[in-house]
Amino acid sequence: MSSNARAIDFYFEFASPYGYIASQLAEDFERRVGRPLKWRPMLLGPVFKITGQPPLIDIPLKGAYAKLDFARSARLHKVPYQHPAKFPIGTVAACRAFYWTDDQDPAKARALAKALYRAYFAEGIDIGTAQGVVAVAKSVGIDGEKLASALEDPALKARVFKEVEAAVAAGVFGSPFFIVDGEPFWGVDRMPMIEDWIRSGGW
Amino acid sequence: MSSNARAIDFYFEFASPYGYIASQLAEDFERRVGRPLKWRPMLLGPVFKITGQPPLIDIPLKGAYAKLDFARSARLHKVPYQHPAKFPIGTVAACRAFYWTDDQDPAKARALAKALYRAYFAEGIDIGTAQGVVAVAKSVGIDGEKLASALEDPALKARVFKEVEAAVAAGVFGSPFFIVDGEPFWGVDRMPMIEDWIRSGGW
Repeated sequence: MSSNARAIDFYFEFASPYGYIASQLAEDFERRVGRPLKWRPMLLGPVFKITGQPPLIDIPLKGAYAKLDFARSARLHKVPYQHPAKFPIGTVAACRAFYWTDDQDPAKARALAKALYRAYFAEGIDIGTAQGVVAVAKSVGIDGEKLASALEDPALKARVFKEVEAAVAAGVFGSPFFIVDGEPFWGVDRMPMIEDWIRSGGW
Repeated sequence: MSSNARAIDFYFEFASPYGYIASQLAEDFERRVGRPLKWRPMLLGPVFKITGQPPLIDIPLKGAYAKLDFARSARLHKVPYQHPAKFPIGTVAACRAFYWTDDQDPAKARALAKALYRAYFAEGIDIGTAQGVVAVAKSVGIDGEKLASALEDPALKARVFKEVEAAVAAGVFGSPFFIVDGEPFWGVDRMPMIEDWIRSGGW
């Protein structure tokens, strides 16, 4: 793909099964649309405070459907999926680790994000703690000690807070959420629609 | 399509833009999957009381996206769409009119449902009142006087109440909602997935 092709914003929450599936489809998607994704993890907790929504899984009727659909969507896309014993979890440490890594090496940050997602949704690892995040980070070649101390850095904490604010300002309310030249698309099941949108120039 | 092919339950709410779009795609969909849809209008009001959800349009962030996506989804499917001035509306009269007609003539009930949807979402007609519903019903050849008096029949009111209860018991929490041999699918954007599911036998 052309290196100056405009990036598509790819917002996601590390505790989101649909975000996980999208992350596993990302490279293939980029190749097909010929544009890069800018990975922007965010936190649905603060967003749900604004939208007044409980976690999806806690909504009567919808929660049961969601649980069935997480696994069904994973099977459709041939992505390994094992519903986590503890779900959802807080993902602020995962988010901080991503942005800390991203500032140094975006490719490594992406590898970290994919590893965190796989750990949580396919390998039964709790990524809700700093220790869990550091262990996964080490597995992709990140310096665990440096990361562990960075996770407590107030500047990094503020950075993640600002990223979440920016996501909300852009209208993001779910995961995954894509913004293509200002046009918002919510959901992994909308990825084919985004492809059509880009190919056709929109409708 | 084979007349004894098993029907797919097609639940919808008359004030749902996505239900409207699905209704306009219904015949084409039936031809492609080779199975008939059983049209089952329901009321999202009582369902939202159970799920604790406000109307989609009232949810911060999500409401703005929904409004954009209603029109965008309609353009994608080449369905005329004009966001109603009064939205959402109560659709209990529309629902009653459907089931009253369905008991006599299912094909006419389907024609009525499509006409009600077009009236509300393409022609700026308020179908939230018995008068509005009767006017649309007359336009598809239904006896307006008989319908107007039937709309006040306690047995018909109870019938609609039971249909909504049955929808909730089946796990329906949104519109459109399809159930294929026990497998639930929510959303007009899942219709291609349903086709794949039926063609492949599921996954």
